[in-house]
Amino acid sequence: MPYIPLEEHLPGITGLLEYRRDSAEPIRELTQILLRGPSTLTTGERELIATLVSHRNDCLFCATAHTAVADLLLGECETTAKIKQDISASPVSDKMKALLTIAGQVQSGGKNVTIESVETAKAAGATDIEIHDTVLIAALFCFYNRYVDGLSTVTPKDPSFYRGLAGRIAVGYQRLPQGYDHLKQKK
Amino acid sequence: MPYIPLEEHLPGITGLLEYRRDSAEPIRELTQILLRGPSTLTTGERELIATLVSHRNDCLFCATAHTAVADLLLGECETTAKIKQDISASPVSDKMKALLTIAGQVQSGGKNVTIESVETAKAAGATDIEIHDTVLIAALFCFYNRYVDGLSTVTPKDPSFYRGLAGRIAVGYQRLPQGYDHLKQKK
Repeated sequence: MPYIPLEEHLPGITGLLEYRRDSAEPIRELTQILLRGPSTLTTGERELIATLVSHRNDCLFCATAHTAVADLLLGECETTAKIKQDISASPVSDKMKALLTIAGQVQSGGKNVTIESVETAKAAGATDIEIHDTVLIAALFCFYNRYVDGLSTVTPKDPSFYRGLAGRIAVGYQRLPQGYDHLKQKK
Repeated sequence: MPYIPLEEHLPGITGLLEYRRDSAEPIRELTQILLRGPSTLTTGERELIATLVSHRNDCLFCATAHTAVADLLLGECETTAKIKQDISASPVSDKMKALLTIAGQVQSGGKNVTIESVETAKAAGATDIEIHDTVLIAALFCFYNRYVDGLSTVTPKDPSFYRGLAGRIAVGYQRLPQGYDHLKQKK
């Protein structure tokens, strides 16, 4: 049960973003820019970073939601499963293996990112902005995971909830405009 | 030395916010709303949350900067020193002791926030929105600390740098408009 009164039909982050809409706006905007804006990383690759960090932070709501989004964007479910077990054995490029390794280091603490992991990423073709964005996205999900779990929000068990959420998030992180309420998940 | 090319005269977070200005904008806005916007917590109390979390994340740039801002807003240097050693022995209200305890739990992981610590805060007079904002501010600094240290930004040693930065941040987190460049710290 959440530590503060949230709308019952809005679990996880969704209720928090409705609870305080003024702070929700820049949170949505930052996420939209980083996860859906122009980038040389695909939206699927960026969702893999969100998935890995949420998984390692043991945030079940975020990990399940972003796994579903990444699966939808990648068109398969193997990669998300593999990166949680062993990044080096996962079916992604060497560049993505290096970037996911950096994201994992950020999750455990900013100082844990090593010059060696950065050099490995650069040798595999990662650009400065890709390294920057990887660190920033990983940091953003350390933020989200703490927001969601720190207030003890509800984590739905029904997989169809996450498939519905993934369908919305795949399009973007903006608040649904009036008239699109039928796309909102109601429990 | 930073892992990506940042402007040399802009250490810590300042160079990162110039490196990618589009993502910097919602980061600044979120911080402004949470740390300077209307709240029943004073700006000094909210900066204590930022200070504690940055200190516990061992982010020297953010911890030193927000200690300086909190000292400036509180008009003394004792409280920031004490909360880093022992929250329960620090010269703040019982409500702030309880909220700082929650912030410390968020720092170590969202799931570490306990119902007992939330009930203690409520019994000491903390409102739902104060608990919400404490968790959100603590999560935000887990984000900042990882962004700053994850890209190995420069941490100035000169205390006068942080006093100058504190003077700017005490006013607000917005980007300085054109014509105010004389307020920027140049090394």
